[in-house]
Amino acid sequence: MNAEIIAVGSELLLGQIVNSNAQFISKNLADIGVNVFYHTVVGDNEKRLASAVQTAASRSNLLIFTGGLGPTKDDLTKETIARVFNKELVHDEDSLKYIIHYFAQTNRQMTENNKKQALIIKDATVFPNENGMAPGMAFMNDGIVCLLLPGPPSEMKPMFQKYAMPFLLTKMDVQTRLYTRVLKFFGIGESILETKLQDLIDKQTNPTIAPLASEHEVTIRLTAAHKDKEIAMKLLDGAESEIVKRTSSYFYGYAEDTLEKQAMDSLLKSNATVASAESLTGGLFGSILTDLPGSSAVFKGSIIAYSNELKQKLLNVPDSLIKEHGVVSEECAEWMANHIKILAKTDYGISFTGVAGPDQQEEKPVGTVFVGIAGPLETKVFSLKLAGTRKSIREKTVKHGFYLLNQLVKEGQ
Amino acid sequence: MNAEIIAVGSELLLGQIVNSNAQFISKNLADIGVNVFYHTVVGDNEKRLASAVQTAASRSNLLIFTGGLGPTKDDLTKETIARVFNKELVHDEDSLKYIIHYFAQTNRQMTENNKKQALIIKDATVFPNENGMAPGMAFMNDGIVCLLLPGPPSEMKPMFQKYAMPFLLTKMDVQTRLYTRVLKFFGIGESILETKLQDLIDKQTNPTIAPLASEHEVTIRLTAAHKDKEIAMKLLDGAESEIVKRTSSYFYGYAEDTLEKQAMDSLLKSNATVASAESLTGGLFGSILTDLPGSSAVFKGSIIAYSNELKQKLLNVPDSLIKEHGVVSEECAEWMANHIKILAKTDYGISFTGVAGPDQQEEKPVGTVFVGIAGPLETKVFSLKLAGTRKSIREKTVKHGFYLLNQLVKEGQ
Repeated sequence: MNAEIIAVGSELLLGQIVNSNAQFISKNLADIGVNVFYHTVVGDNEKRLASAVQTAASRSNLLIFTGGLGPTKDDLTKETIARVFNKELVHDEDSLKYIIHYFAQTNRQMTENNKKQALIIKDATVFPNENGMAPGMAFMNDGIVCLLLPGPPSEMKPMFQKYAMPFLLTKMDVQTRLYTRVLKFFGIGESILETKLQDLIDKQTNPTIAPLASEHEVTIRLTAAHKDKEIAMKLLDGAESEIVKRTSSYFYGYAEDTLEKQAMDSLLKSNATVASAESLTGGLFGSILTDLPGSSAVFKGSIIAYSNELKQKLLNVPDSLIKEHGVVSEECAEWMANHIKILAKTDYGISFTGVAGPDQQEEKPVGTVFVGIAGPLETKVFSLKLAGTRKSIREKTVKHGFYLLNQLVKEGQ
Repeated sequence: MNAEIIAVGSELLLGQIVNSNAQFISKNLADIGVNVFYHTVVGDNEKRLASAVQTAASRSNLLIFTGGLGPTKDDLTKETIARVFNKELVHDEDSLKYIIHYFAQTNRQMTENNKKQALIIKDATVFPNENGMAPGMAFMNDGIVCLLLPGPPSEMKPMFQKYAMPFLLTKMDVQTRLYTRVLKFFGIGESILETKLQDLIDKQTNPTIAPLASEHEVTIRLTAAHKDKEIAMKLLDGAESEIVKRTSSYFYGYAEDTLEKQAMDSLLKSNATVASAESLTGGLFGSILTDLPGSSAVFKGSIIAYSNELKQKLLNVPDSLIKEHGVVSEECAEWMANHIKILAKTDYGISFTGVAGPDQQEEKPVGTVFVGIAGPLETKVFSLKLAGTRKSIREKTVKHGFYLLNQLVKEGQ
């Protein structure tokens, strides 16, 4: 199967957004061994879109379209493709019901043009849109597989993984397949990790080993190619164990794992609870933890004491402590962690105090951060020196918090 | 001039990197009034690249290539274009000297294939590469302007601005330029907004009016074309005032504005402070507000009372209130907003309580949300019915919070 990814949208040609959909789809197709030969971007213009469809159909046999499925007159993808391939458009009952329900639920008025979103190519396989209104779809035409997906990445990505990937796998000749495994590391830079593994990266070809830095973490993608799944898994296992042997303290999990999920799972396993006392992070720890469904079983709450006044009033930090050590100090982090644990009657209390910038504070440089963790037996404070922008210092601080909390909870098990 | 941007590189088709070059070039071309009709991405494959060059030459008269100018065998852009257009490749003396000097300066050994980087299309205008080794170039062929630029954005972007833009301006009739303005709306769906403006969207051609949904908001892009900047600005002003007249309560700002920044600015202007009491949002309000440098002047802190126990203990929510109305109630939101305002001694207290899902709570459906705002004179509670995932309900809740807080602070001014 030779694929072409066609994004439809004038906002791309005006440079207002970047075509991240093409990257996402390409990466997923590479993982299942589908060659992508072209990306095309075309505007909301019927004539040029029709010509792009024809060009694509003449050189590729898997066409994946993103965008142009919205309710407005600008949105022409379905209509144009139907015309080029001589197909009929019909209303999909389930999608129409879903749209009507969505408007009813949100007390909003449905307009006539919203119904247009429920139109599908006749006999197409419908991909439900769980994060928006426009359904996706797939159909065959003269040996060419066509997929139509919505443009907003928040709608397209989950639909692609849940519905489009399984659909594509049923259409493929299965010979050699690619199997990937993603290993995740925290607390180590990409280049140091790569140096530790350079000889493996150079000599290993099956699986290949590809490090990638992302969001204050490093991931390594292992890709094994084999027609037999079991053998591919063994190849992956072998590479993984060699890599983990060399990098053990930094390795923390696989693709779907996150530091916050692991901390939550450890707390659940210990039947333990946590509360936080946040200063420089301003609620980011609580916010990320409570993004996880089920977090109410482990998280009781938090005090965000952004001002010194509230540190004293809500967390009882003694005046003498602040005068002697300042609020950006090991002593203050320790106090905050202990106090929130007692106040919220939890098993663990975690605290964050530090300087996110842009200005220094108490003559301590930007990036000075203390994380305190009060556990059932003792309280530990970790001193960090972080680099980056205000935003990245706050994000890294919280990642360290989840990482350290997970370690300490696991040690107590 | 109708442009097509052709990126050459298999790493793009494998999804390893995103095509940010196309976005950058498109944005710059839009600013000087050049229409971009297509983006194409093709791999490091001579046959498919040649075919992409031919297709582009048949439909566009400005072809801008990025990538494939490096020293390795994979790098085929110049060679393939020269072949398709029947041009000769020659060594550019200045570029060769520069490369030799670069290697000497960095104490690295120069290999024979590095000389390949100094090859240019005969008689092309050379664009020096001040951030790498491969020069860019421009030439004409049968009325088609071709630009070849390096792939790494750190080399391409400065070269484009310093050399390619001035080159293009000499080739253009500088007549019409495009001027854009982005209007931002909150609390209204894309299709209702469009319905309100349909006649304008249909009949207005200068400026054009394009709505776009993004991250729980809607933006409208106005694009005016005129050779005279002042007249273009007047055209934009006219369209803006007509749009705002019809949608006034939803319009909140321009491209760089965000709801949180506006709320912070209103508080600063009123010399007022705020503290929050968060339940379903788990700290998201505080976290977004404290992402802004300078927020410490307006934000004192927050109590995240995720468990009912902490709502009672830290926010003193009376047992009787919870028994009678539940924690997901107007009454609880009002109490929380009032109490945090008193506790933190701020001018405003804002509270969030509701059901983010996935499960309902107190027999109230997912998406039931109450936002309380206690101000200097009175306390108001807003009842919302939100749809979406847990994550999007939490995000929308906080956006509503910033929007409402901004409105109330401005009303008090």
